[in-house]
Amino acid sequence: MMMYKCAIREVQTKLEVLDDEFSVRYKRNPISSIQTRVKKPISIFRKLKKYGLELTPENILKGLHDVAGVRVVCAFIDDIYMVAALLANQDDITVLQVKDYIKEPKANGYRSYHMIVEIPVFFSRGKTPMKVEIQIRTIAMDFWASLEHQLRYKKDIEDVEGHEEISGRLLECADTISDTDRKMQEIKRMIGEFNDLS
Amino acid sequence: MMMYKCAIREVQTKLEVLDDEFSVRYKRNPISSIQTRVKKPISIFRKLKKYGLELTPENILKGLHDVAGVRVVCAFIDDIYMVAALLANQDDITVLQVKDYIKEPKANGYRSYHMIVEIPVFFSRGKTPMKVEIQIRTIAMDFWASLEHQLRYKKDIEDVEGHEEISGRLLECADTISDTDRKMQEIKRMIGEFNDLS
Amino acid sequence: MMMYKCAIREVQTKLEVLDDEFSVRYKRNPISSIQTRVKKPISIFRKLKKYGLELTPENILKGLHDVAGVRVVCAFIDDIYMVAALLANQDDITVLQVKDYIKEPKANGYRSYHMIVEIPVFFSRGKTPMKVEIQIRTIAMDFWASLEHQLRYKKDIEDVEGHEEISGRLLECADTISDTDRKMQEIKRMIGEFNDLS
Amino acid sequence: MMMYKCAIREVQTKLEVLDDEFSVRYKRNPISSIQTRVKKPISIFRKLKKYGLELTPENILKGLHDVAGVRVVCAFIDDIYMVAALLANQDDITVLQVKDYIKEPKANGYRSYHMIVEIPVFFSRGKTPMKVEIQIRTIAMDFWASLEHQLRYKKDIEDVEGHEEISGRLLECADTISDTDRKMQEIKRMIGEFNDLS
Repeated sequence: MMMYKCAIREVQTKLEVLDDEFSVRYKRNPISSIQTRVKKPISIFRKLKKYGLELTPENILKGLHDVAGVRVVCAFIDDIYMVAALLANQDDITVLQVKDYIKEPKANGYRSYHMIVEIPVFFSRGKTPMKVEIQIRTIAMDFWASLEHQLRYKKDIEDVEGHEEISGRLLECADTISDTDRKMQEIKRMIGEFNDLS
Repeated sequence: MMMYKCAIREVQTKLEVLDDEFSVRYKRNPISSIQTRVKKPISIFRKLKKYGLELTPENILKGLHDVAGVRVVCAFIDDIYMVAALLANQDDITVLQVKDYIKEPKANGYRSYHMIVEIPVFFSRGKTPMKVEIQIRTIAMDFWASLEHQLRYKKDIEDVEGHEEISGRLLECADTISDTDRKMQEIKRMIGEFNDLS
Repeated sequence: MMMYKCAIREVQTKLEVLDDEFSVRYKRNPISSIQTRVKKPISIFRKLKKYGLELTPENILKGLHDVAGVRVVCAFIDDIYMVAALLANQDDITVLQVKDYIKEPKANGYRSYHMIVEIPVFFSRGKTPMKVEIQIRTIAMDFWASLEHQLRYKKDIEDVEGHEEISGRLLECADTISDTDRKMQEIKRMIGEFNDLS
Repeated sequence: MMMYKCAIREVQTKLEVLDDEFSVRYKRNPISSIQTRVKKPISIFRKLKKYGLELTPENILKGLHDVAGVRVVCAFIDDIYMVAALLANQDDITVLQVKDYIKEPKANGYRSYHMIVEIPVFFSRGKTPMKVEIQIRTIAMDFWASLEHQLRYKKDIEDVEGHEEISGRLLECADTISDTDRKMQEIKRMIGEFNDLS
């Protein structure tokens, strides 16, 4: 677990470096906040079991891609793709997988850009490549996801009808939020144009 | 300035204590983030000048209410009023002023709950009452305000028409965002009701 | 446990305010670092059992004084007494007990200034007085204590003679360290005198 | 300056990874604290002038090695050499220079292990090698150095005799501190031996 915690540190440092640079060069921070988590042992155990694998350090390293998770919350949609591209371009990072749930949202309305990357971490016994899942989303997508998460973990709700009504409303909100994100992006672009002229 | 920085520390600690308590008692965090700032000397100078006051420590202490600023970003509208009420109830805090720009938004669409409070800070020479401005808002209101702020500081824009178009669009977005906040609040209430039943 | 964590936050904020103030007023930081800990449930259980008390929230609140612990590491011996006096003078803090292991070191060489204080913490249901143990020591005393701590937790050492030899050497070191602390304090005083003259 | 701040972040992350690993593997932290600083513009200007160089980004990058500084404070002397070796072994770090002021203390009693390393930092326009000065020392050496630093910056002291007396006492203390560090190291080694046996 400590190894995954260290891999997260490395990714977080890379993101902070990029954000620092933008803050100085363009007077703004593309990254609004960074959250990190290491998957809990019980969740690792369950996921391995689902895959029919035993709980061994090797199976964790090979079979699971999301033990180390970094969530990057950006102000604007453009920032998401810029941060993703800047990470992908770094020569010590290997991108193993990309899922773009912004271009193709999940059925429930979930939007986010997911990458699984491999990054070298220097331990006392040498350099070890570690996998990290990076989720990049806007502030609005993040807020929506946290509410949807609360709903998903109330599986024992008897009242199926009520559950469906909430899901329906959440889906509506996801669309409104997505519209607003696009409008805010557009306003930012317009402000930026004045900037370039002046 | 150091004295204001310390007053901010005290308010921040009070907020963190409330958030910790909720996190344990109700398994959720009403406060999403806390930002703080001490007004810059040049801004203090300008504001005093506007009021026709000289730049003296006394005039700063008496004449200005927003040298120390704390911004509290909450997930839901209800959380805003709850946090405000819990602060107002603490017997070492005196609320000097409240402006509710959520119930009555500014003309440009700005929404936020503002309080000016007085709080005792213990320095080596004794207890000193200090004023702190507290702004409480939702994540969505906060994002909107940060974009509006960028526009406001481009006063030298020649193209008045363009400026007005952007302002118009921002106002529209403010209303959509406010609607979405209310819908998300409603969804949370519905999820919560299931919670109480189960 | 959360309540004790919050009490620690309040004490830490008070200490940071004092340190900030000194940093501005006298261009130096009396506090080198602050460490905090909440006693582990198993240790609480053992201590209550030793006292013949059952594990109830009431017995913890009344019977134990060191559930919340704050360790303040100062550069110089004088700073210890100054920090202790400044805390004791604050009118919302009640000092319940003082043990000065600097004036009267423990038999093994342990030196530190211990206070048990009571401080009000504002929770959502009102103000609650909480007990916090504050240990104040120099950097050198702190380093010694951490090494002594390592030895104490090897109770199963068979070789009693070896254990005694280490204890003897630690006691010697405690005296040398204490001498050095006093000499450094003296040098600081001499440098300070030049300061006052110039 | 931002580029140096980012180089510091990278070194700090490497150190934290090593400390995390040791904390899990050997149940102890070799690194007691990490301090960082970027040289102030005025100091950079003075140093370049001393070398007869103009103030240009190129001259800073080539001519100065200590714009970015990381100070690592370890508990024991052995930890210093271990941390230094682990850094030197990482294949993305190039060690440009080593000065061992522990084996050969400066005339005034100063002890510390200095390395100048080059480390790649990933900015948006690509990978840039950056120089960082790393100073590694024990807690006791660090405390001594901070007091000596205070003395050195009182150059305008008239009373030369007094200055010499203080310097003399500081030198004495440096030797006592160094002895104590060695004794504490020895005690740790003895405790460790019991550990290995049990």
